[in-house]
Amino acid sequence: MLKDFEMKKKEDKDALNVEIKELQTRLLQQQQLLVKEKLPVIVLIEGWAAAGKGSLIKELISEIDPRFYHVVSPTVIPESEERYPFLYQYIKTIPVNGKITFMDSGWMENVVRKYLRHEITKAEYRRRMRQINEFERQLRDGGYLVLKVFLHISREEQYSRLHDLAESPQTEWRVNREDLWQYKEYKRFVAAYDEFMEKTHHTIGWQVLDGSRRKTAIRDALRLLVQKIDRGLEAGRYVGNTPDGEFPLRKMPKLSEVDLTPTIDDEEYKKELKKLQTRLSELHNIIYRRKIPVILCYEGWDAAGKGGNIRRLTYALDPRGFDVHPIASPLPHELNRHYLWRFWTRLPKTGHICIFDRTWYGRVMVERLEGFCGEKDWKRAYYEINEFERMLTDWGAVVLKFWIHVDKDTQLARFTDRQNTPEKQWKITDEDWRNREKWDQYEVAVDEMLQKTSTKNAPWFIIESNDKKYARIKTLRIIVKALEKACEKHFEQILE
Amino acid sequence: MLKDFEMKKKEDKDALNVEIKELQTRLLQQQQLLVKEKLPVIVLIEGWAAAGKGSLIKELISEIDPRFYHVVSPTVIPESEERYPFLYQYIKTIPVNGKITFMDSGWMENVVRKYLRHEITKAEYRRRMRQINEFERQLRDGGYLVLKVFLHISREEQYSRLHDLAESPQTEWRVNREDLWQYKEYKRFVAAYDEFMEKTHHTIGWQVLDGSRRKTAIRDALRLLVQKIDRGLEAGRYVGNTPDGEFPLRKMPKLSEVDLTPTIDDEEYKKELKKLQTRLSELHNIIYRRKIPVILCYEGWDAAGKGGNIRRLTYALDPRGFDVHPIASPLPHELNRHYLWRFWTRLPKTGHICIFDRTWYGRVMVERLEGFCGEKDWKRAYYEINEFERMLTDWGAVVLKFWIHVDKDTQLARFTDRQNTPEKQWKITDEDWRNREKWDQYEVAVDEMLQKTSTKNAPWFIIESNDKKYARIKTLRIIVKALEKACEKHFEQILE
Repeated sequence: MLKDFEMKKKEDKDALNVEIKELQTRLLQQQQLLVKEKLPVIVLIEGWAAAGKGSLIKELISEIDPRFYHVVSPTVIPESEERYPFLYQYIKTIPVNGKITFMDSGWMENVVRKYLRHEITKAEYRRRMRQINEFERQLRDGGYLVLKVFLHISREEQYSRLHDLAESPQTEWRVNREDLWQYKEYKRFVAAYDEFMEKTHHTIGWQVLDGSRRKTAIRDALRLLVQKIDRGLEAGRYVGNTPDGEFPLRKMPKLSEVDLTPTIDDEEYKKELKKLQTRLSELHNIIYRRKIPVILCYEGWDAAGKGGNIRRLTYALDPRGFDVHPIASPLPHELNRHYLWRFWTRLPKTGHICIFDRTWYGRVMVERLEGFCGEKDWKRAYYEINEFERMLTDWGAVVLKFWIHVDKDTQLARFTDRQNTPEKQWKITDEDWRNREKWDQYEVAVDEMLQKTSTKNAPWFIIESNDKKYARIKTLRIIVKALEKACEKHFEQILE
Repeated sequence: MLKDFEMKKKEDKDALNVEIKELQTRLLQQQQLLVKEKLPVIVLIEGWAAAGKGSLIKELISEIDPRFYHVVSPTVIPESEERYPFLYQYIKTIPVNGKITFMDSGWMENVVRKYLRHEITKAEYRRRMRQINEFERQLRDGGYLVLKVFLHISREEQYSRLHDLAESPQTEWRVNREDLWQYKEYKRFVAAYDEFMEKTHHTIGWQVLDGSRRKTAIRDALRLLVQKIDRGLEAGRYVGNTPDGEFPLRKMPKLSEVDLTPTIDDEEYKKELKKLQTRLSELHNIIYRRKIPVILCYEGWDAAGKGGNIRRLTYALDPRGFDVHPIASPLPHELNRHYLWRFWTRLPKTGHICIFDRTWYGRVMVERLEGFCGEKDWKRAYYEINEFERMLTDWGAVVLKFWIHVDKDTQLARFTDRQNTPEKQWKITDEDWRNREKWDQYEVAVDEMLQKTSTKNAPWFIIESNDKKYARIKTLRIIVKALEKACEKHFEQILE
């Protein structure tokens, strides 16, 4: 009897090993298809300390081509030292089309741990779970295949593993305070993991694997991954619909209703400019010290005066505390990722100001009109952008968006002036003339954008710029006022 | 008399303001030409705390186009927390062709401060000055225009400025311990700055400006920059010659002299593989704890077996502690920077292993043969690469380079096999066949590369790979031996 039992066990083990090998080979073949179909894959491996996340990843990658995958182990940065929104470090590492990113723990561990450490409040914890759901949905809707695995072990199992690691001089250093703390707080962790998974399960489901059975867990993870990729390849790149939901919006006028006659006389301009720049310079100091991030977005017609407007603003700022990001057509490595990636990776640190000279709204203007993305994509983008900006303001950022506005005649006059002035000729290109021909189509797109994305937390301001000086003063006034308010509000939060 | 004096003074001041304005406008015009001529510019502003570096930069950028410049303020990271070679953070921020990077203090402040804080030894201080000279020369030889400015103020002036800053509640936070410490240690700083500038003056000269006369300093800095750019534009992109100097080299055989017959039998292979992987896994732990960075470079003929070789290696490693960097043709944003930039930015942190699947040696192979760079460029590259690798080993890295070698017949057999096996077809491309036609030219280039870059500190190993299994075992043995030596050596250094 016992001999039969042993033989059966040996057979099972052999069969398991064979299947693992087969799946690993299959994954290698799938890689080629992923590259061909330009499908990106994210594999998130969460789970208990010492559950074997690292060695699982090792098996997942053991046969595949290193040119097309990447392993990242994001760290849990203490909340007090985070200078970016908490999702920043994960978004930074998403793969380009055709590649796989394996994450050795990620946003789940980060958020749960901070919550259990009382580094973030319950309300913030809930907010982050919502943001994670939004993030995962945006990835899926943008064509990413996402697999989420949780490697589970019991408290006894964790004890014995940590114990074994700590006993051997070779591995003893691998057991750290955090791990021991988790073991001590196992019960609280179970409850928190459980809650987290339940609340982040509906877009992309969690797969719980039994970490105490190493080989079986490897086989199961491989199966899940191979299956996910097979289905993804079969279905073709997924394009999401616009989710349901509403954002509190500010009422915006149509561009055609805007009165463009306001002007300012030279003397008042100089006086006001000086006053506002001085005030802004003071506010920049306060912003910096209170670590408030500020994001200023410029959009507008060609030759509307964005550049000069931005220069009047930056002149008041300490160059060590701001960045201007001019946004042109995406480069290949940007085009091959989620369209918001190149903006996420340009976000300012807390306490810094960043100015976008053109923005993510390209999605619903040039990309829409030139067909650089599908209709479903730009239609979904209003919602995604509102979510993105809410994430920024939830983080504590001041987000202001300016549409620098002129009428068609003024644009023509400025184009002609540029054309006829040798030292200004570089400022005018054939593309500007081509865009001008599409003025009416752009106006429709801009109106729709202003209606749908001027949220209470990240509002649009139309800046009348037929008189550039008037426009500069108006913009500066809005910024000064918003920063004053942010400093006050922030101060109140500290006092609470 | 006094009235005349005052009038003269007023006139001088007005003239100064007019000249500054003119120079700022000139700089804006130059920006267009820089873009057109694809010339990159680096402006390094060093100087005393409170000397006005920030406000100088503000004036330099006040009129120019934010699309084509970038301001960075690298920080002095304490030596104990540096996880990369000290130049890493500066190299990261070098501009793409056509743009300007302004640095608000940089490698000078970093190195001098660490030396005066006794964080680095005198010997290390000297070594870093040498590395800085190498770095600056490489930038210049690669076509970068570099301006180095030092903003000088006296001890009395510094006292009064720090005092004023500290008195005002608006600015009081800007005076930090570091600044006060510098004031206290003014004499030691003078001596160190002086020595540093003398020793890093010969490739790119230092320009000392009088920080106590704000407007004059701005004018002078603008003049210097405008002049530098004018001359650069006039002369056209500079292409450097190979510098004089020698590196201690290991004697290498010619490829044609290598005996490719060695093999290993299956049983021994399995046994050895297991043994070496186990040992490597242990060593990876030690490397990680002792924070030794490891850089493994793979080059070789197409189909020589690089991929399989790398996989046998990585299988022994913890995926959290290594990265594989497959190197393909440079992307546009990489092509527009110094050719070593994309490798610098992929260096491992201390304690990590990184594996380059193809490397910077592309410069002296494919780029040489396909004419992707000029003759002077690839000829100079042997020297530059030796410097680059010396910088890595000086930093404490283990650098090993493998040429995975097969003969022409073996390659043909493997190509044919790939061609005829459906699941391997993706591995073979037209380019592989084209490269094969150039075998002889490549062999000349590889021989020259092996002769000129197998330094004592970063040696080449030719790996006979007609038998792939033999090749894997040989590579693993070399790595294990080198890591064992590094761990010992490192241990001795700690004991000293």
